[in-house]
Amino acid sequence: MKSFDKSLEIETEEEGNAQKQENNSEASHNVTPLLLDSWKPYKGTRANVKGQLLKLRDCLESVCGIQWYGFATLGILTAVLSFLMDFSVAKLLQAHLWLYGKLEGHILLQFLCWTLYPACICAFASSFSHNICPFSTGSGVPEVRTMLSGIEVPHYLSLTNMFTKFLGLTCTLAAGSTVFLGKVGPFVHLSTMLGAYLDRLCRLIQGKKKDAGTEMMVVAAAVGVASCFGAPVSGVLFSVEVMSSHFALRHYCPCFFSAACGGLTFHLLSVWSRDGETLQALFKTNFPTATPFFPLEILLFALLGLLCGAGSRFYLFCHRWILKFTKTNRVFLTMLTTEKGLYSGLVVFFLALLTFPHSAGQYLASKCTTKQLLTSLLDSRQWSSQSHNASVRLELDSLEWSSSGAPIFLSLAFFLLMKMWMLVLACTLPLPAGYFMPVFFGSPVKTEILRVRHDLFHGAAAFSGAVTHTLSPALLAVELTGQVTHAVPALLSTLLANALARSRNGLSFYDGLSISKKLPHLPSLKKACPQLPSTPLGQVMGVKSVQLQKAAGPAEVQSAVSNSSEAQIPVVDSHGMQRAVDIHALY
Amino acid sequence: MKSFDKSLEIETEEEGNAQKQENNSEASHNVTPLLLDSWKPYKGTRANVKGQLLKLRDCLESVCGIQWYGFATLGILTAVLSFLMDFSVAKLLQAHLWLYGKLEGHILLQFLCWTLYPACICAFASSFSHNICPFSTGSGVPEVRTMLSGIEVPHYLSLTNMFTKFLGLTCTLAAGSTVFLGKVGPFVHLSTMLGAYLDRLCRLIQGKKKDAGTEMMVVAAAVGVASCFGAPVSGVLFSVEVMSSHFALRHYCPCFFSAACGGLTFHLLSVWSRDGETLQALFKTNFPTATPFFPLEILLFALLGLLCGAGSRFYLFCHRWILKFTKTNRVFLTMLTTEKGLYSGLVVFFLALLTFPHSAGQYLASKCTTKQLLTSLLDSRQWSSQSHNASVRLELDSLEWSSSGAPIFLSLAFFLLMKMWMLVLACTLPLPAGYFMPVFFGSPVKTEILRVRHDLFHGAAAFSGAVTHTLSPALLAVELTGQVTHAVPALLSTLLANALARSRNGLSFYDGLSISKKLPHLPSLKKACPQLPSTPLGQVMGVKSVQLQKAAGPAEVQSAVSNSSEAQIPVVDSHGMQRAVDIHALY
Repeated sequence: MKSFDKSLEIETEEEGNAQKQENNSEASHNVTPLLLDSWKPYKGTRANVKGQLLKLRDCLESVCGIQWYGFATLGILTAVLSFLMDFSVAKLLQAHLWLYGKLEGHILLQFLCWTLYPACICAFASSFSHNICPFSTGSGVPEVRTMLSGIEVPHYLSLTNMFTKFLGLTCTLAAGSTVFLGKVGPFVHLSTMLGAYLDRLCRLIQGKKKDAGTEMMVVAAAVGVASCFGAPVSGVLFSVEVMSSHFALRHYCPCFFSAACGGLTFHLLSVWSRDGETLQALFKTNFPTATPFFPLEILLFALLGLLCGAGSRFYLFCHRWILKFTKTNRVFLTMLTTEKGLYSGLVVFFLALLTFPHSAGQYLASKCTTKQLLTSLLDSRQWSSQSHNASVRLELDSLEWSSSGAPIFLSLAFFLLMKMWMLVLACTLPLPAGYFMPVFFGSPVKTEILRVRHDLFHGAAAFSGAVTHTLSPALLAVELTGQVTHAVPALLSTLLANALARSRNGLSFYDGLSISKKLPHLPSLKKACPQLPSTPLGQVMGVKSVQLQKAAGPAEVQSAVSNSSEAQIPVVDSHGMQRAVDIHALY
Repeated sequence: MKSFDKSLEIETEEEGNAQKQENNSEASHNVTPLLLDSWKPYKGTRANVKGQLLKLRDCLESVCGIQWYGFATLGILTAVLSFLMDFSVAKLLQAHLWLYGKLEGHILLQFLCWTLYPACICAFASSFSHNICPFSTGSGVPEVRTMLSGIEVPHYLSLTNMFTKFLGLTCTLAAGSTVFLGKVGPFVHLSTMLGAYLDRLCRLIQGKKKDAGTEMMVVAAAVGVASCFGAPVSGVLFSVEVMSSHFALRHYCPCFFSAACGGLTFHLLSVWSRDGETLQALFKTNFPTATPFFPLEILLFALLGLLCGAGSRFYLFCHRWILKFTKTNRVFLTMLTTEKGLYSGLVVFFLALLTFPHSAGQYLASKCTTKQLLTSLLDSRQWSSQSHNASVRLELDSLEWSSSGAPIFLSLAFFLLMKMWMLVLACTLPLPAGYFMPVFFGSPVKTEILRVRHDLFHGAAAFSGAVTHTLSPALLAVELTGQVTHAVPALLSTLLANALARSRNGLSFYDGLSISKKLPHLPSLKKACPQLPSTPLGQVMGVKSVQLQKAAGPAEVQSAVSNSSEAQIPVVDSHGMQRAVDIHALY
């Protein structure tokens, strides 16, 4: 039965190209047992092929360890997945707009098309992911953090989950700016699942039977972000920041290698899919390089950082409130436990009602995709002067920021307020979805109102950094726009926003999700939220590991020392009242 | 006596501005003991002042912890030091060239001016640093690494050392492109010393008596690089990579905060010292942004990475050979132990002989400073087409790459070969000096010979990354030139160069220095060089810590458990034959 499962896995995996050789090597590894099955045909041919494949494996291993091929494959495959998803989403959005355009003049049909399309898609995504793999909803980042802290979370790394998450996320993104959710978090989860699978594969090829390490998972977290945007450096920093409380240097090179492979593949695929384009920054801006900013503007950036920090606290408060509300309100609770599809459909219908271009949607630029909006916002043309941005000028003309004739800043303020509570509502949807990008996006609008030059850029970094308690958004903004001269002020804004967001033990977005999902919490959470229940140490360390009680008798200690092959033995207060100590201190 | 020392320290420190308030707060902390000294005058006034200062301290603490002021001060002061050094060095170099120019026509006088000026400066630096603080020579990075791994290295963090190192390094840099050494390494050391001092100060203000943590040191390592170039991100990554085998996330925000402060101060000082300039990249290039590079060029970048990796192995071999040679050859050994000043003077005289503009120097562009050379090389104008670089066009005209009329590529090849062995020789000088920047610089020349477009950029990153076994040079190149679209290929080149350099347990530059200096080695070294002697664990852990022998009797174990207040007790094979276990596992 086990070997059947394995062959099934191999067949499933063969859809992912670029690793055929590894599959074959894997098959070849079990050469002796297979030859024993005398009833199988073509014994000689198979033996020959297997011999060749074994040679290939040795040849590959002579260049570098098999795990390095795994890291490269992980990066490339994640980037391919990311590109495929972008491609499908773009087509689905195009189809929606095409249909909407065709129905011009029939306002009722247009209304139905506008509202039912995303509602149906989201309802489908919700039911599908609930029925196939209920663990695929949400962003997945809190679960990955829990796994990286050494706690096993079953079913979260299965291939079924990966398939469900990929399809569900495509549907969520296809709902467009109505639902307004992102893809970063789920991609971290997707790449972790891919990483876990490749890790198993590598260990099979190497013939090792030892347990899975966390190496591939740490790498996968970096690759997820890197492949989403082709931004390897911020990907690695995100992995360092979000994932655990310590970062081992031996993961550093694999992380960068895999992220660079992923980023490169993503860029190359973008280039090859659109003729004439080259390897540019994803959201190209043409800020004046001669005078990036003036020294005194730094004070404004600092102020902006503080404002974003305050805004993030308010946003997080709203988010936690609605998470609590959906868990306590009986109507919501019933809907969310029994009728996920219906709930998603209704909420998205309601949101689409608001963004309908003939109603409030005319103030919300609702016909644009999230990417178009972001491009337009990062363009820094101050909304009145001509565009610095060369590559997207054509797209910009179609943006409807001021189609209603209302003043642009009033329109933006309205946009911000609406999007904020709509996003909070959208976060309750039981769908595979990311919450980072909307936050990254929501913030530029807010800061534009301040009319600071380039503040979009800094605001985006500062606000999303404050919400997630990370600094990598500053770098992400630099990598996305290619404005390296703005790295220092962006970093400064993000740091100040973070300081405000973290003050008085403020919880990050992911911490909030972890608590809401009742996941075994990380040491950072314990500090921020002392009223949380402790997880016994034994549950974390597994059964086999030897512990010493503080009040242990001589015989007990003697046996512990002689039984343990470890260099260190943890000393706990008592077996009964163990506290959750810093798990990473044990590695 | 102790209080006298303290007041002396305070007086010394008062030269460093921007932290007067902290000094005062420190003094005010000991308010009660001072009031007891009834013979001191103005008791009432002093008490009043101290009361105010205590209030100020509480006021500061109410915003954020005192250590954050320490981090900010560290960044700002290091940047100020870096700027001051750049300023003095520029003046000294200018004076040299002015004198040389005035002597035009008197070739003997010109020769003496050219050779004796750097020789005297270096001889002075060598004798001075030897006599005042012999620990100030070299780069200091290996010692900082040792300290960060938890081993105390006495005298390396004293203020005397800091003063000596600063003056010595200024002299070394003032010798210009003849000696061709850098400032990164010593600046890491300088900022570590400053950090250790500020750490003591912060703990005094807070009234804590606990031992110094490594936090300020980790931060200081990041600040050193960030302040040298105003490149905060690569500074932090350098600190992550070089300093230890694990990186604790609680150091992450302090590192970025301090590095951002340092980078910002450095940029602002540069702006304010030269009118009309704004906050640009340090070595501005104008690579065409529309077509940064073509997809197939990536293969060339990969090839370049491999070439740089091979080159770095050769360079490291030469470097280790000469380090060994100077330790075994009797003439060198006698010179280096007794007549450091004379040795430095002679070697620099010899080097200056070669770079004399009327001899071989005409092929070596020896009249240019290191910074001018770097600017010219990163300019990527392919040596024949017109310059992409707007800001340095004027300087470029004065560069003498082809003054001799010889073909430019022959000239470059000659330049490379000469600089390579001259650099290896210069590395033996007993001076405070950095070895990173010359390596970063030496590589573009090499790769220019390949005529790959922009390869300078990638070559610089790949070669210096390979020599030091780090990836941060890729990011440093991006930050220095502001070319973020080149991040991915630069990362790729650096990764491949690293892979080649690390293969077969290759030692990094810093590992080589650590071994040559017989420093207690890091776990990474142990893996690469198994024949190294082990350091007993007890020496590392100090006397107080409790250990358990594997074969300990019950009584011994009982006492160990009851005596220790730690959560873990290390178990060693035996007290006599302890092996140097991974020190970081104990943190």
